[in-house]
Amino acid sequence: MPSSAQRCSLGLDFGTESGRAVVVDLATGEILGMAVHRYADGVIDERLPGTNAPLGSDWALQNPDDYLQVLRHAIPEALRQAGVKPDQVVGLGVDFTACTILPTLADGTPLCSIPEWHGNPHAWVKLWKHHAAQPDADRITALAAHRAEPWLARYGGKISSEWLHSKTLQLLRESPQVYSAAERIVEAGDWVVWQLTGREVRNACAAGYKGLWERGIGYPSEEFLAALDPRLRNLNRTRLSAPVVPPGAFVGPLSDAGASLTGLLPGTAVAAATIDAHAAVPGIGVTAQGAMAMILGTSSCHMLLSETEALVPGISGVVADGILPGFFGYESGQAGVGDLFEWLVEQATPPRYFQQAEAQGKNIYQILEQEAAAQKPGEHGLIALDWWNGNRSVLTDAALSGLIVGATLATRAPDIYRALIEATAFGARVIIEAHTAYGVAVRELVACGGLAERNPLLMQIYADVTGRPIRQGGAGMASALGAAMFGAVAAGAGSGGYSTIAEAAERMVRFQSVTFHPIPEHQATYNQLYAEYLRLHDYFGRGGNEVMKRLRERRGAGNAE
Amino acid sequence: MPSSAQRCSLGLDFGTESGRAVVVDLATGEILGMAVHRYADGVIDERLPGTNAPLGSDWALQNPDDYLQVLRHAIPEALRQAGVKPDQVVGLGVDFTACTILPTLADGTPLCSIPEWHGNPHAWVKLWKHHAAQPDADRITALAAHRAEPWLARYGGKISSEWLHSKTLQLLRESPQVYSAAERIVEAGDWVVWQLTGREVRNACAAGYKGLWERGIGYPSEEFLAALDPRLRNLNRTRLSAPVVPPGAFVGPLSDAGASLTGLLPGTAVAAATIDAHAAVPGIGVTAQGAMAMILGTSSCHMLLSETEALVPGISGVVADGILPGFFGYESGQAGVGDLFEWLVEQATPPRYFQQAEAQGKNIYQILEQEAAAQKPGEHGLIALDWWNGNRSVLTDAALSGLIVGATLATRAPDIYRALIEATAFGARVIIEAHTAYGVAVRELVACGGLAERNPLLMQIYADVTGRPIRQGGAGMASALGAAMFGAVAAGAGSGGYSTIAEAAERMVRFQSVTFHPIPEHQATYNQLYAEYLRLHDYFGRGGNEVMKRLRERRGAGNAE
Repeated sequence: MPSSAQRCSLGLDFGTESGRAVVVDLATGEILGMAVHRYADGVIDERLPGTNAPLGSDWALQNPDDYLQVLRHAIPEALRQAGVKPDQVVGLGVDFTACTILPTLADGTPLCSIPEWHGNPHAWVKLWKHHAAQPDADRITALAAHRAEPWLARYGGKISSEWLHSKTLQLLRESPQVYSAAERIVEAGDWVVWQLTGREVRNACAAGYKGLWERGIGYPSEEFLAALDPRLRNLNRTRLSAPVVPPGAFVGPLSDAGASLTGLLPGTAVAAATIDAHAAVPGIGVTAQGAMAMILGTSSCHMLLSETEALVPGISGVVADGILPGFFGYESGQAGVGDLFEWLVEQATPPRYFQQAEAQGKNIYQILEQEAAAQKPGEHGLIALDWWNGNRSVLTDAALSGLIVGATLATRAPDIYRALIEATAFGARVIIEAHTAYGVAVRELVACGGLAERNPLLMQIYADVTGRPIRQGGAGMASALGAAMFGAVAAGAGSGGYSTIAEAAERMVRFQSVTFHPIPEHQATYNQLYAEYLRLHDYFGRGGNEVMKRLRERRGAGNAE
Repeated sequence: MPSSAQRCSLGLDFGTESGRAVVVDLATGEILGMAVHRYADGVIDERLPGTNAPLGSDWALQNPDDYLQVLRHAIPEALRQAGVKPDQVVGLGVDFTACTILPTLADGTPLCSIPEWHGNPHAWVKLWKHHAAQPDADRITALAAHRAEPWLARYGGKISSEWLHSKTLQLLRESPQVYSAAERIVEAGDWVVWQLTGREVRNACAAGYKGLWERGIGYPSEEFLAALDPRLRNLNRTRLSAPVVPPGAFVGPLSDAGASLTGLLPGTAVAAATIDAHAAVPGIGVTAQGAMAMILGTSSCHMLLSETEALVPGISGVVADGILPGFFGYESGQAGVGDLFEWLVEQATPPRYFQQAEAQGKNIYQILEQEAAAQKPGEHGLIALDWWNGNRSVLTDAALSGLIVGATLATRAPDIYRALIEATAFGARVIIEAHTAYGVAVRELVACGGLAERNPLLMQIYADVTGRPIRQGGAGMASALGAAMFGAVAAGAGSGGYSTIAEAAERMVRFQSVTFHPIPEHQATYNQLYAEYLRLHDYFGRGGNEVMKRLRERRGAGNAE
């Protein structure tokens, strides 16, 4: 049990289905208590609550009241579990999915909570994975390219349908009335901080990666916005007018209203919000330049801090102060990683491996891994291009597709499994080398996410292929821990917190000892195989043979994707 | 039951595990009786009968006495089943696997039947799939290339380890004593005819496709043979000195010894032997130029008759009189066809398709076929290169390997199944176009073998891809029927047989009615996909990117092939 001198910070991690509160010991990083509260309305993708009106197939909404319920229930429960009293909590940080935005009045009232707008789906929160704004994204990309907007290159030349301007343009097009009524359009993470402090700010992480904002320049110009739609001209001065602050900056003390929502003491320091993936970067101890944080899941997200600014090709964004204050934050990613392994298991693994798994009491991945791990690099004679889900790094081309070469009658599922792992490692190396070619160093990899935890073969192959040590960055709560660290920095050293995120990391991140180092002889083989990968990558990805695009055009509507 | 006026011919079909006799009605082609006799010693690939001496791993021998047992047992049994008396049988034809050779004395006595040599494996029959002479084949190819031997081009530039000179060189190298004692080296098919007639000839089919013999020129020169090994100089004048005759030519009347072996009447006409695959050509009704006979099994073999001689690239041989007298016979093939589909089923088809098969009482191929058949051409978005087993047509390169491009997370086993069928069809079209580019017409396809019988989807795709009608050429007894037709021609019209093989075909081949015609809209799509296939074919097969060879070199000993 904690002593009365123990000081804590609280991390709030808002995910897709639920929100979580963690109570972290400031001195040791130990997680003393944790509580999860599921959103009552969850992901709203069929019909609006209380109505029968069906939503479009790519829609995904949420109810902002669900976020308040997390504050009401998860925080007291986490404190109770931790045996920690409110006066021990010095700070509070928030991370949130993004771009997850809602229209509100100037005082923060969500439009969907006003009876007049309650029945209009555009008045609700649009969740990050609301994908109905693709035509809007395409228009923004085309117009920015046409006008040679300088910011386009910072996003790899392509604006996502998930981002703020795409969602805002859809809102305007489909419901000009809601757009008119919306005095603010705000990221849900910033909205939660607003509820806690009564202060309206925008965090530079979401504004930068999802809102086309740049430090020193701001959002896209009024001319651009007006060219997109004349009604958007005043967007920056009205709906996005709040100041932008670095993630983790002190926004304000917890208000009385915030205190009564959460059971914490008024005056507790509240940090600016950040994106959940980006909160994981300090959460796994990455606070200085040269370490690339990799979140390895169905897809992968790579984040890198640097003091150097460069327009690295294929990144999904570079944002000053975007991840941590004082650094340019580089974000990039791979469209298919765990997805590919799942495809192999679901679609191309024969029954006997499942029978083996059952007989040995293991899961199917373990069976494939044990056979694949017994091989030497190159032994299976295969190379794959990891584009089952397209490419969203240096080629930024969703029309690309997967390739396997080298198959023989002796090719087995564990061979393909290993080749797919290697292909994703080669894809990661392409991204790393894109950075280093532009002077942005990558010295070490720190991986988190399910694959990093469970798959030592993958970790070793990533080390061997990239020629860099790769460290397991800690368990599933990296984002919540990062949020708590931001809370500690917002509180500051004078209140028992920390002055900088690096200081916080030094005390609060409990480094796992497992680091995978490149094995020199594997590295030599993989350097040669990487050259093969690159040759195929460029041939199929850079116009040598556009067969993948032509095949995609042919693909019938019969094949769901 | 046959009337007493009924005239018959007897076909003897010697396969790998057994020999078969069929009694065929000369007027209708009806198969009146059939009997199979299994070889008691089967394929001898572990140890020599009666000894403990193990054979090498690539060895495959047979016992010639097993062939005599087929004559003794299968012929009387087939007659009995047919209710046919010996005097109704006007002729007898033989087809045999090749190159399947044995060393004998000048009177035809097999060396292995002589006690002195019985324990020496080189004294036995070397079966077609004896593959221990690869180093010898490589030496012959290299020397022929070095000396620019004109015959090398007729065999696609490469001599197989299965062929007569490779096996003979191995025999000489490893057992000079057996080589010295061998007064003759003879194809087993020719040896059987010798046993039946007392006359020693060589059939032009085996001599041409497997023995480097050419009409008007003969076997490779003494200079070449002496350069290979001085002891081989007199090979043509001694061990291969018998006359070469077209397959199906009249060799002689059945001898008294042959009559007592078989129960047939002395004087029955006996035709020259032919290779089993080649006997199927007339057996499925291909007796004129422009129709390509395709035997579709685990691999495929294509045979074509033409009055034009050309050195078509990628064929495995062109032999004057090699298939039917009066034509140049072109043989070519694909290294992997049914093999690829079996690979998919064994190595890359997930459990639910097997469960479906069980639930529906179907086999797994039917399940894959029904889903694949529901697709339009190109709908799956895949292209494959069919080189799982290397390429032995126009590229003649065993180091090539399989490729699939276009995979997405939505790719399913039936998609890959259809893509593999299409890839083998594209491979067949490459071969067809190699012929037509050299003025050798291919107007129609006639397919036999298991895949032709069982797989209407494959047949339709072959029609659509090649733009040619493809006919199902009849059931599994095409070779035996072809042999019987040769027997009828050997007997001649005067004895109740036929004057020509075309005449025999007209009466004896019971054409199946099923012909698959190209569907014009499929053809248009497949023309475009074929262009994609060719682009990949040339890139990976003709030096654009030699990645397949480099991957093969890396492939560890751990992966059996």
